[in-house]
Amino acid sequence: MFEAAEVGRTLAKEDFKRLEPEVHNLFLQLQQRLRESDKALIIIVAGVEGAGKGEVVDRLNRWFDIRDVQTHAYWDETDEELQRPRYWRFWRTLPLRGTISVMFGSWYTKPIVDTVFGKLDQAELDQELKRITELERTLSDGGNIIIKLWFHLPKAEQKKRLEDEAKVSKFKKSPLLKKFSKSYDDFASVSERAIRLTDTGFAPWNIIEAKDPRYRDISVGNVIISQLQESLSEDSGSKSEPDADVEVTQSNVVNIGEILHEKSSNVTVLDTVDLTLSLTDSEFQRQLDKQQLRLHNLAWQMHNQRRNAVMVFEGWDAGGKGSAIRRVTASMDARLYRVIQIAAPSDEEKGHHYLWRFWRHIPRAGYMTIYDRSWYGRVLVERVERFAKANEWLRSYQEINDFEEHLVNHGIALFKFWVHISKEEQLRRFKEREKDPRKQHKITEEDWRNQERWDDYKSAVNDMVAHTSTARTPWTLVSGNDKKYARIQILETICTGLENHLVSGDID
Amino acid sequence: MFEAAEVGRTLAKEDFKRLEPEVHNLFLQLQQRLRESDKALIIIVAGVEGAGKGEVVDRLNRWFDIRDVQTHAYWDETDEELQRPRYWRFWRTLPLRGTISVMFGSWYTKPIVDTVFGKLDQAELDQELKRITELERTLSDGGNIIIKLWFHLPKAEQKKRLEDEAKVSKFKKSPLLKKFSKSYDDFASVSERAIRLTDTGFAPWNIIEAKDPRYRDISVGNVIISQLQESLSEDSGSKSEPDADVEVTQSNVVNIGEILHEKSSNVTVLDTVDLTLSLTDSEFQRQLDKQQLRLHNLAWQMHNQRRNAVMVFEGWDAGGKGSAIRRVTASMDARLYRVIQIAAPSDEEKGHHYLWRFWRHIPRAGYMTIYDRSWYGRVLVERVERFAKANEWLRSYQEINDFEEHLVNHGIALFKFWVHISKEEQLRRFKEREKDPRKQHKITEEDWRNQERWDDYKSAVNDMVAHTSTARTPWTLVSGNDKKYARIQILETICTGLENHLVSGDID
Repeated sequence: MFEAAEVGRTLAKEDFKRLEPEVHNLFLQLQQRLRESDKALIIIVAGVEGAGKGEVVDRLNRWFDIRDVQTHAYWDETDEELQRPRYWRFWRTLPLRGTISVMFGSWYTKPIVDTVFGKLDQAELDQELKRITELERTLSDGGNIIIKLWFHLPKAEQKKRLEDEAKVSKFKKSPLLKKFSKSYDDFASVSERAIRLTDTGFAPWNIIEAKDPRYRDISVGNVIISQLQESLSEDSGSKSEPDADVEVTQSNVVNIGEILHEKSSNVTVLDTVDLTLSLTDSEFQRQLDKQQLRLHNLAWQMHNQRRNAVMVFEGWDAGGKGSAIRRVTASMDARLYRVIQIAAPSDEEKGHHYLWRFWRHIPRAGYMTIYDRSWYGRVLVERVERFAKANEWLRSYQEINDFEEHLVNHGIALFKFWVHISKEEQLRRFKEREKDPRKQHKITEEDWRNQERWDDYKSAVNDMVAHTSTARTPWTLVSGNDKKYARIQILETICTGLENHLVSGDID
Repeated sequence: MFEAAEVGRTLAKEDFKRLEPEVHNLFLQLQQRLRESDKALIIIVAGVEGAGKGEVVDRLNRWFDIRDVQTHAYWDETDEELQRPRYWRFWRTLPLRGTISVMFGSWYTKPIVDTVFGKLDQAELDQELKRITELERTLSDGGNIIIKLWFHLPKAEQKKRLEDEAKVSKFKKSPLLKKFSKSYDDFASVSERAIRLTDTGFAPWNIIEAKDPRYRDISVGNVIISQLQESLSEDSGSKSEPDADVEVTQSNVVNIGEILHEKSSNVTVLDTVDLTLSLTDSEFQRQLDKQQLRLHNLAWQMHNQRRNAVMVFEGWDAGGKGSAIRRVTASMDARLYRVIQIAAPSDEEKGHHYLWRFWRHIPRAGYMTIYDRSWYGRVLVERVERFAKANEWLRSYQEINDFEEHLVNHGIALFKFWVHISKEEQLRRFKEREKDPRKQHKITEEDWRNQERWDDYKSAVNDMVAHTSTARTPWTLVSGNDKKYARIQILETICTGLENHLVSGDID
């Protein structure tokens, strides 16, 4: 989840200077449309200490016309508040229709802090998160647009900042700061669960990389513009005439996002994958023999202990997914696994919920299922090609997370691979295929078209990792430019994962 | 909750014979519309043992054209199922679009049974129920109509049935039957929580009184017809021309419900209130002095212990709500309470979520708020007068339950009174008011109109009690034909409640 916000994105000063006034202008336009609507806007500012949340709040107050914006810092509870039910302080500060509340701290703070410091156990945390989900649904159903921002810093960066800050001034230090810094890992894992369980279609989380302030602030602007835009258009969808103003604004919005992506270095989590990694032929052969034998034995151990596993393979066309799967299956007794090729759904599959076709093939105890493409199609191809509507693929993150949590709760070992190659490498492979009569059938017009959609897919993959990679259901990003390296990376990940799985993990 | 299904409703044989073919006919019509839609129907049959769930399933299979109906009894898990994640068995039996699955037993069974027998604690039960809610939302968002039926029997009736059954045949006995019968109360309280936390707008529960099989079956028919009708019409709402066939069907539907209510004795939970109760003047005076002194002292004790209380008064016009409230407030120091009259919302209140205006007045520690009318307006007047849409008031049950649970979790003593009088008594009081110059202002044209809506309100009150009366947030139905009796009943309920509250209950 947070790996998608440790990419190292930055934005140059001149790009910031160009984008900032645009964002400001769009904020004012959208605020006007909000005023004329029957909706209210709640912006939740949350995340790790030291990420500059205060600066973001200042920025929001500059971008919006401040008359209709109220900022609420839920710091110590007042007497008035302590004497009433916990949500009272939030209810009393809800925005009036047409106006905006910026919540600096929110209903998330207390459950997360209490869990980190051992006052709540996991079931109790989940109970609190269920209450939060219900609260947000209630507010959303009642006409509140909820935009949730989570600001993330890598561990080393947070430490550095807190130290720097301590040097400069004692006054900026929150009393909990030292404690937080020490418990970074606990805080990260509790936050991950909180985000994961409250990442709904009606109030999705946006995880924002906070290391570079310029990138951070324009990202915030972009997120708010897109989500506000979409929420305000939902109602006008029923109106007959499209509004000319709206159209103009919409094209501007796309620009902010596009320019931001174009100009910021290391756009997505995929850019963190080192594509220069490679193996020599002899090293590959040595490793392959070793890992295949290891997997062969592990698969039998899994069978004998009646454990099951699920492996998901996604990746770029011509990325080498198929050949990597063959190296995996070649290691195992054919009775122990099934490979499910996910292509266009059958009539029967179309007649069911999109997850039904994947549920069908969940293996029983002692067996494995390998999905060649998977339920992630919903948030990849269906999103990019617009087969699914925005609200459909947005709510899929939660549906997929619930589904996968159900699997791992049952004790299934789950592996998720994205086989990554560079755009240039894909082009090279396509051209190679065209020349090779045995491989020509593998390449279609669609493949060429997908090359053009590269950036859309990249950003869909980034969001997918941000929303669905959790400690218990992590994504493995495979370095695929060198096929040999990719195959060994996959085999090794599976073997290590299965070994860990075999020594732990109860079935519920 | 279950009190609304212990009313003693029955249906005469000749009425059943008249209605049954109508229901059958409507089932076939709606099934045809379902076939032509892109939706599927899931009917969940749940409830206490001995309520005749098997008979209901048989009945459904007779009413529907059986070709498109699959009945699934989730009894013992097969090997195949045990070896896979728990929901697998449900996913594999989901209906294809256009078809129907009747689920005899469901995802509710295991969490409820496990909690009754101590395998799950409450936080774990809540976790399971959250998963169920997410599953149902996923299915509902994916085009499945979910109709949930809960069949209820009073304790004595269940005992009698299980004994009778045991005499006739050993084969009908489920192995858990004896255990269940012994743990009726545990089962009821766990079920109540399960229903309460999963009673959502997209998959609401219907609690059906199962004592009289004829009433039970026609009720089932009526519930399925209304819900199916409404769900199938949601899509066609966008079509331009209203379909003539649909219109015909709709008028039929209203008929089934109306005839059922007309013909069944003791239509609603309000009919269980004994309206003949009364007090003599001297007994009233004696009791009033006693209870008012008791309340006076209790209010100070609450204040000194910094406990707070919330009292909700709802009831028929001219039911004596106002004068009962005055007897309550007269007992207490004026500094300790506030009475909030709920009339039309102010502009500011209109600009917020409908619950906001009630949240504002939640008392702080040591004080009380008395709401003269309340958040229940949403499911009473706004429902009956159609100010709120069906999906709005349907989801309010859950919003209200979440809200009230939040209050009692904080340690607030919550009282909810419905002051009940008979229709004739109301008419008598209206006429009396008309004659009395001091009271003429109290009666408006709206009051007369509400007399005509008596039955609509009655059935709204019944649903309100069914959905929002829980062990921790019970409704008190006040016998109001004799004002003296009503006032004492209210005072006594408050005093006993506060006494219990003061000796228990932590603040969270």
